[in-house]
Amino acid sequence: MSWNSFGRVFRFTTWGESHGPALGVVVDGCPPGIALSEGDIQPFLDARRPGTSRFTTQRREADEVRILSGTFEGRTTGTPISLMIENTDQRSKDYSDIAKAYRPGHADYAYDAKYGLRDYRGGGRSSARETAARVAAGAVARLIVPEVTITGWVEAIGTHAIDYDRFDGSAIGDNPFFCPDPQAAREWEGVIDETRKAGSSLGATVVVEATGVPAGWGAPVYAKLDAELASAMMGINAVKGVEIGDGFDAARLSGEANADPMRPGVAGEGPDFAANHAGGIAGGISTGQPVRTRIAFKPTSSILTPVDSVTRTGEAAQVRTKGRHDPCVGIRGVPVAEAMMALVLADQKLLHRAQCGRDEA
Amino acid sequence: MSWNSFGRVFRFTTWGESHGPALGVVVDGCPPGIALSEGDIQPFLDARRPGTSRFTTQRREADEVRILSGTFEGRTTGTPISLMIENTDQRSKDYSDIAKAYRPGHADYAYDAKYGLRDYRGGGRSSARETAARVAAGAVARLIVPEVTITGWVEAIGTHAIDYDRFDGSAIGDNPFFCPDPQAAREWEGVIDETRKAGSSLGATVVVEATGVPAGWGAPVYAKLDAELASAMMGINAVKGVEIGDGFDAARLSGEANADPMRPGVAGEGPDFAANHAGGIAGGISTGQPVRTRIAFKPTSSILTPVDSVTRTGEAAQVRTKGRHDPCVGIRGVPVAEAMMALVLADQKLLHRAQCGRDEA
Amino acid sequence: MSWNSFGRVFRFTTWGESHGPALGVVVDGCPPGIALSEGDIQPFLDARRPGTSRFTTQRREADEVRILSGTFEGRTTGTPISLMIENTDQRSKDYSDIAKAYRPGHADYAYDAKYGLRDYRGGGRSSARETAARVAAGAVARLIVPEVTITGWVEAIGTHAIDYDRFDGSAIGDNPFFCPDPQAAREWEGVIDETRKAGSSLGATVVVEATGVPAGWGAPVYAKLDAELASAMMGINAVKGVEIGDGFDAARLSGEANADPMRPGVAGEGPDFAANHAGGIAGGISTGQPVRTRIAFKPTSSILTPVDSVTRTGEAAQVRTKGRHDPCVGIRGVPVAEAMMALVLADQKLLHRAQCGRDEA
Amino acid sequence: MSWNSFGRVFRFTTWGESHGPALGVVVDGCPPGIALSEGDIQPFLDARRPGTSRFTTQRREADEVRILSGTFEGRTTGTPISLMIENTDQRSKDYSDIAKAYRPGHADYAYDAKYGLRDYRGGGRSSARETAARVAAGAVARLIVPEVTITGWVEAIGTHAIDYDRFDGSAIGDNPFFCPDPQAAREWEGVIDETRKAGSSLGATVVVEATGVPAGWGAPVYAKLDAELASAMMGINAVKGVEIGDGFDAARLSGEANADPMRPGVAGEGPDFAANHAGGIAGGISTGQPVRTRIAFKPTSSILTPVDSVTRTGEAAQVRTKGRHDPCVGIRGVPVAEAMMALVLADQKLLHRAQCGRDEA
Repeated sequence: MSWNSFGRVFRFTTWGESHGPALGVVVDGCPPGIALSEGDIQPFLDARRPGTSRFTTQRREADEVRILSGTFEGRTTGTPISLMIENTDQRSKDYSDIAKAYRPGHADYAYDAKYGLRDYRGGGRSSARETAARVAAGAVARLIVPEVTITGWVEAIGTHAIDYDRFDGSAIGDNPFFCPDPQAAREWEGVIDETRKAGSSLGATVVVEATGVPAGWGAPVYAKLDAELASAMMGINAVKGVEIGDGFDAARLSGEANADPMRPGVAGEGPDFAANHAGGIAGGISTGQPVRTRIAFKPTSSILTPVDSVTRTGEAAQVRTKGRHDPCVGIRGVPVAEAMMALVLADQKLLHRAQCGRDEA
Repeated sequence: MSWNSFGRVFRFTTWGESHGPALGVVVDGCPPGIALSEGDIQPFLDARRPGTSRFTTQRREADEVRILSGTFEGRTTGTPISLMIENTDQRSKDYSDIAKAYRPGHADYAYDAKYGLRDYRGGGRSSARETAARVAAGAVARLIVPEVTITGWVEAIGTHAIDYDRFDGSAIGDNPFFCPDPQAAREWEGVIDETRKAGSSLGATVVVEATGVPAGWGAPVYAKLDAELASAMMGINAVKGVEIGDGFDAARLSGEANADPMRPGVAGEGPDFAANHAGGIAGGISTGQPVRTRIAFKPTSSILTPVDSVTRTGEAAQVRTKGRHDPCVGIRGVPVAEAMMALVLADQKLLHRAQCGRDEA
Repeated sequence: MSWNSFGRVFRFTTWGESHGPALGVVVDGCPPGIALSEGDIQPFLDARRPGTSRFTTQRREADEVRILSGTFEGRTTGTPISLMIENTDQRSKDYSDIAKAYRPGHADYAYDAKYGLRDYRGGGRSSARETAARVAAGAVARLIVPEVTITGWVEAIGTHAIDYDRFDGSAIGDNPFFCPDPQAAREWEGVIDETRKAGSSLGATVVVEATGVPAGWGAPVYAKLDAELASAMMGINAVKGVEIGDGFDAARLSGEANADPMRPGVAGEGPDFAANHAGGIAGGISTGQPVRTRIAFKPTSSILTPVDSVTRTGEAAQVRTKGRHDPCVGIRGVPVAEAMMALVLADQKLLHRAQCGRDEA
Repeated sequence: MSWNSFGRVFRFTTWGESHGPALGVVVDGCPPGIALSEGDIQPFLDARRPGTSRFTTQRREADEVRILSGTFEGRTTGTPISLMIENTDQRSKDYSDIAKAYRPGHADYAYDAKYGLRDYRGGGRSSARETAARVAAGAVARLIVPEVTITGWVEAIGTHAIDYDRFDGSAIGDNPFFCPDPQAAREWEGVIDETRKAGSSLGATVVVEATGVPAGWGAPVYAKLDAELASAMMGINAVKGVEIGDGFDAARLSGEANADPMRPGVAGEGPDFAANHAGGIAGGISTGQPVRTRIAFKPTSSILTPVDSVTRTGEAAQVRTKGRHDPCVGIRGVPVAEAMMALVLADQKLLHRAQCGRDEA
C-alpha cells in the first residue's frame, strides 16, 4: 500500500519522484503563531543538498524550498503548510538501462512485483531524493520543539570509525562528513575518494542525539517513543538497523552492568542519572536524559562492478550502475535522520499535551 | 499519549494491567469465514506462558484465552474479535516497595513524570504481561497469512551465542530457551540457573524469520515493511535494537560484499537470489526472499543487587527488586516477536490487496 | 471493512454481538487522574437500558458495567480503560427464522453480501445492543469535558411533535420518552401503546444540545466539528438524517434571515450572539454558542405485518418480525446520541489542546 | 486541530488558501496502472469553476490542474499523486475590511478564537476555494470506481423547488444550475438575478445519487457507508444537513410505510427491491440499490445588508460584504458533493477488497 504520511497529530505527507517536475510535503497540525519563512527551512536542505562536495553525488540541485500555504504575515496559521522543491537536474538519459534490467539491491524488482509498473527514472519514488521533503518538514518540526537540541553525526564509514576520545561536537559542521572527529574526517577523505574512483560504495553508522527532551513524552504501548523512532529511522532509505541507547550491546550485558542509577537532582527538575544505557527512554516514555539512537546505513547498491541480475522478462543480465551516486549514502543521511528525530519529537510533544495538558481538573 | 492500537487495516487494541482482573485485545479488520476457536490461540499463549520452567518467572498464570465476540459457529464473521485472559496469580504484596521508590531501568519514573500517578502493582501497564494480548492477536494474524511460516529463536543469551553450524530448526521446541543449537541449550541451563541464583539478569538476541512472504507486500514510504517491523519489534518490552537482514553488519561492508545478485528463477515465480543481505525487503517492499529481523533484549532491570534510586518525593533510596522475574526476558520474547511479525504481515497483506487487488481494470 | 474505532486522539473501540456472552469497549487516550468508578457510568447505561418501561423492548438486561483496566485507586491512569457488559437475556430461539430469510430494512442481506456469512442471532453485530458500549464510553467522555452540559430529547414520534412553547428541560427525565413537553409525553403513551399493539413501529426526531462548549474546538477541514458530529450521529443505528443548527430549514432562507449577528459581550468572554441558526459551529469550529444537532430515526424495520423478502438461496419469502423490539428506537436513541456528542467533544477538546495549547512560544 | 486528510486507505490531503499562490491535494493509495492525465480531471474542475456564468461569483480562475507526481507514461504508479492549481485572480484589496471586523456567519471569529490569528484574505483556509482540491481528488477517485455512475443536481434554491414529475437527468448539464427540471431552471435565472442584484443570497438543497454500487461496501460500525458520507457531505462549506434515503421524512413514517420489500432478482445479481427508502444502505453497508444522499446548503453569509458584528478588539461594528460572491453557494456545491461521493466510494471499495477479497482461503 502506498502510505506517504507520518505522524499522529503532527502529520506530514510527502510526494514526488526523483525525475518528476518537483517534490514536496504537506505538514498538517502545526501550532499557529510560529514565525516561519523559507529561511528557517533552507539551511537544513542545504546541509542535505547533493553536489556540494566531491564526496557525495554529483547531481546538482538547488533544492530551493517554497512555502505555498499555511503562513500569513510570516507566521503559521494552524492550517496545512505546503512546501515544494522543484527538480532541476534530472538527466533522465543516465537511467535508460534501468528500464530493462533490475538493479540488484534497489527497489526495482520489488516495485514491479507490487505495482506491475514503475517509474524507473532515477528510482522514481524509491529514490532517496524523497528525503529532501522530510528534511523540509523536519525544519518545521524543530520550531515546535525549541527546547530540544538535535545533533547527528557519522560514527563510522565502513570499518573506519571515529575515536570518541577525540569527539568534538563543534567540528561536525566543519567537514563534509558530519564527522565529530577531525582526524577521522581527514582519513575519510581518502577513503571516500578511493571508493568513488573504484566505483564502489561503503556503509555507515550514524548517531542522532536529542538533548532537552523533558521526561514524559511517549506512550506505553505501540506509540512508544522508541517504537516511533525505530519506524522513523528504519524508514530512511538504505537503513537496515536501529538502536536506542546501548542497543545490541545491552543484549550482551548483565542487569547490573546495564543499570541506570538515579540520584536526587535539583529540586523540581527530576533525578540525576548516573548513566544512560537506556538512551533516554524507559517504558516507551522519555526520562529527561538525552534521547539517543544509532542507525546503520547499508552501502549504496549502485556500483560499477557488474552484478548478476534479471530483466523484466526474466532473462539473465548483468548490471553496472553508472550515473551519479553517493559513494556512502550514510553521510547525507545525517540531516535526514535529524529531521526524523525532530518530526517524532514534535508529534509526541503535541500528543503528550493532548492527554496530559494542565487544563483538566 | 496512550496509544494502544497497532495496524492500519488489520488493527488490534490491547488493554489490561499486570495486576488488574484481566487483560485482553480487540482484533478488528479480520477477514470473514476463517475457522477460529480458542484452540487456535491457546498453543501460542502456552509457549509464552510464565511459570512453565525454572528458567522463567515463577508467576503462575493459566493464560486461558476466551473469545468474547467476532465468531459464529466456529468462523470469523468479519466483526471485531474480543479476546480476554484473566489474571489469576497477582500477589500484589510483592510489589509494595515499588510504590515508594522508582525501580531503575523500569518505567516507574517515566510513568509518574508523564501521568502524575501510576499503577505500581507489577509495573501496571508497563509490565510485559501485556504481551500475552499481542500473542493472542498474533495467533489470529497467522490465520490470515497461512502462506507464511514464522520461526523465531534465541541467538544469544548475554555473551553465550549459538553456533550456526549446529543450527537445527527442529530443536527449537525441544528446550525451554527456543534455542536451535542443542549444545548451546544445555550450556544455557547452567548460565540461567547461575544468573537466577545470583539475583542477576542477562540480555539476549532473538531472530525471527518469515518464509513464504510473496514479493510485493509493503509500501514505498512510512509504511515500509521494514519500518513497520522496526516499530513492532522496538515496541516489545525491553527491546533496544532492531535489524533487518544484515543490519549493522551491512554498515561495515562495501557495495560488492553486500550485493544480493539475482538469477532467472522458475517461470512465474520471480528470480532466484544468490544471497539475502537485505533480509527479504528492498525499498520497503518484500522481495519474495525470507523476511528476517534480529532484535536485542536488554537484561531485565529487576535484580537483587541494590541500585541507587530516588523516591517519589525526591529522596535518595536504594532499590533491590525481589518478586518473581525472568532472569532473561528475551527468552519469553520469542513468541511475542513472532506474533508481531505475524501481525505486521497480516496487515501488509490486506493493505497490498486493497491497493493492488486484481479487480481493478 | 470492519472499523470499530472512533475518535482521533480520544479513541474508543467497541466489540460484541447481540447474543454473544458480552459486549464492551476499550477507551484509549483518556487523561490521567480523573476520578472514575462504575458509578460514573452506570446511570447512563440505566437511561438506555431495555426493559424499563412498556414503551421499549421487553428484553431485560441488567447492563451492569465492569471496569477491567485503566484505573487505579479510583482514578484514571492514562492507560486504556476496558469496560465490559455481560449479556444475560439473549433468548436465541426468537431469532431462528432470521437464519433463513432476510428481514427487510435490516442489515441481514447487506451483511451476507459483504461477509458471506453472518451471526443472525438478534442481528449480531448490527444490533443496536452495540450502542450500550458507546453509552459507557460516553460516560467517560463526559468526565473529560466537565465544562459542557449535554441534553438530548425526543422532538417528535412519527407525526406527533412536541410544542416548543411548552418546552421544559426539567421534565425530560420525568417520562419514559425523554420528552420535554409533559403534554406531548402523555399523548405519546397512547401513541406508543397503540403502535406496539398493532405490531407496528414509528420513526422519531431527536435533538441534542451541548452548552458550555468554548469557542475554538474543531478543525477547518475534514475533522470539522460538524462533520465529526455528522459521522457520529449518522453512525447510530436507524439514523437517516443529521442537521446542525437550522439544518434543512436554512436551505430555504435568505442570507438576511439566516444571519447570526454578533454584539460586544462581557469582556474576555467573546461576543454575544443574537441568534444561533448555525448551531454553534462556523467553518467547522465552535463559536461558543450552544452546539445543536437534530437527527432522524427511521421506524424500526421489525414489524408484525408481513413484508416481501427473499431467502438466502434467493427464493421468495414473507417476513413478519416477532421477537422483542422497540416500537420506536428513537426513544432509546437519546442517551446514545448524547454519548456520541460527549465523545466527539472530548476528542476535539484534546485535539485543540494539542495544537493550540498554551505551552508553545 | 488542523486535519486536512480524508479517507482510510484511499486518502487525500488538501492544502492552500483562497489568496495564497496555489492550492492542491495529495492523493495517496491510488491503485497502480490506471490511465490518468490532466484531461481526466480538468472537466470536473471546469464544472465547479467560478466566473463561468452570471449566476456564480465573478472571481475568474482558470483552475488549471497540474499533475506533479504519481504517474508515469500516462498511468498511475501507485505512489502519491500531487495535484496543484495556481490562484490567478486573488484581488486582495476586496477583503481589507475583514481584517478588522468579523463577518457574521463566516468562520472569521471562530478561527481567531481557535488560532489567535487568521489569514483574512478571502477567508483564507475557510474559503470554499479549497473545494477545488476535493474536486480534483474526486476525479481520480472516479477512475477507481468505474462501475459507479454519480449524478448530482440542485433540488431547490431557497423555496423554489424542482418538480420531480419533470425530472430529466439529461438536462442537468444544459443549464448553469445543475437543474434537472428545465422549467425550474428558467425560473431560477430570475430568482438568482434578483438575489444577486439585491446583494442577498439563498440556500439550496442538493441531491447526489450513485448507481452501480455493488452490495457489500461499507462497515458495521463507525466507518459505516452512511456515516462516512455524512462526514464527507457535512464537511463541505455551508452544508448544514445531510440525509440518506428518505432522511427526515422517514422519521415521520410507520414501519410499514418505510419498508423496502425484496423480491427474487436475476440469478447471481441479488434481490430486486420494490422501494429505496433506505437510500441504498442498510446497517452501514450498501445493498446494491442506488446510494442517495440529500444535503442542505445555507445561504452564503456574504450579503450587502449590514449585519451587527464586533471587531477583533470587541467593539461593535456593522458588516456589509461587498466583494465577489456566489448568490447561492449550493449551485457550485454540486460538483463538490459528487466528488465527495466518489472519494468515499473509492475508499470503501478498497477497504472492502482488503477485508473480503477472494484471495484468502
